[in-house]
Amino acid sequence: MTPTITAFANSPDRGAGLARDMRVRWALEEVGQAYDVQLVSFAELKQPDYRTLNPFGKIPAYRDGDLTLFESGAIVFHVAETHAGLLPEDAGARSRAIMWMFAALSTVEPPILDLGVAKLVEGKEDWAERRMPLVKDRIRNRLTELSRHMGEAEWLDGAFSAADIIMVHVLLRLGKSGILDEFPAIAAYTARAQARPAYQRAFAAQLAVFTGKT
Amino acid sequence: MTPTITAFANSPDRGAGLARDMRVRWALEEVGQAYDVQLVSFAELKQPDYRTLNPFGKIPAYRDGDLTLFESGAIVFHVAETHAGLLPEDAGARSRAIMWMFAALSTVEPPILDLGVAKLVEGKEDWAERRMPLVKDRIRNRLTELSRHMGEAEWLDGAFSAADIIMVHVLLRLGKSGILDEFPAIAAYTARAQARPAYQRAFAAQLAVFTGKT
Repeated sequence: MTPTITAFANSPDRGAGLARDMRVRWALEEVGQAYDVQLVSFAELKQPDYRTLNPFGKIPAYRDGDLTLFESGAIVFHVAETHAGLLPEDAGARSRAIMWMFAALSTVEPPILDLGVAKLVEGKEDWAERRMPLVKDRIRNRLTELSRHMGEAEWLDGAFSAADIIMVHVLLRLGKSGILDEFPAIAAYTARAQARPAYQRAFAAQLAVFTGKT
Repeated sequence: MTPTITAFANSPDRGAGLARDMRVRWALEEVGQAYDVQLVSFAELKQPDYRTLNPFGKIPAYRDGDLTLFESGAIVFHVAETHAGLLPEDAGARSRAIMWMFAALSTVEPPILDLGVAKLVEGKEDWAERRMPLVKDRIRNRLTELSRHMGEAEWLDGAFSAADIIMVHVLLRLGKSGILDEFPAIAAYTARAQARPAYQRAFAAQLAVFTGKT
């Protein structure tokens, strides 16, 4: 059976690939699982019908037969658990890969999300400009720690895993802030991930929704 | 073998149980797994030695034989995967429980953490008072959605699971803000969880570190 994911009908980042359906597309491409896409408008996301898929009214949701899931981290984990290739077979290495999925979402993503809030939600408040250095320094602190840990390693912990999908996508949300450029090893890590054929196929698929060339 | 977790030597919340070791203690108590505790000072957390356990210099870390993990969500998941009682056996229900762990950490916790930052880190900035309503309303939006979804349900999805441990502990961080009181069903949910003997044992254990009555 072919699973279906939901994605924005109108890409808020104009096809830059920062929305969270990208994580799921990428994981599905890595394992070679075909999928269908249900496009939803911003208005539909907040309707009761959509909230039966995700009570928080967000994309992506995932349906496969009787199973409905939301939360990109959980969907990527489900894909990784039910297909070979995204989680190590060794029990310890598998637990560490899962640990890095949680670390990406719980420790690295929150300060990066805060940058989005500071720009997009609070950007016109009179404190926006003065608060921005605090927001950016909290991100720098995390990236300093991540960079020190990774050194020149190719991936987070041994072989490429679901954790790298989540971590790289979290980091790419820094976009044009310039912060990634301050951490060359991390910038190289995200570039290495973006060069993967599965990333490129997923990126092209989400871009095609924006350009209308589906 | 008895696993060891790390926890604050000096409780920043004076034994209120809001530090993330509480989630792991609670999970271990639920499954009846004894554990040892290594207390660490704030200074030790930022030393290279501790960063070999957790590169981000945070508690809790977890050691069991050769396996070292950090990230409370990942540790609770590992405990749930390796012991009976915290994840459903049915595959679909299990995936949904994992989904709710991610939802608690990725969707509900970030705005709640932001309240802590707004109070403790930015509390003396001149914008602190004016920004606070925005921060609190972002939390209210999430809790409105969660409350609408849960209704009067006892737990997040069927039987009590690891997801309830994470979600309840995330919610308890709202502490004395009064926001939980605005959502009676959620307040009842957290109170129901706190009444569990395993929660109470875990709470007493972390409080004993603060009072010195270990």
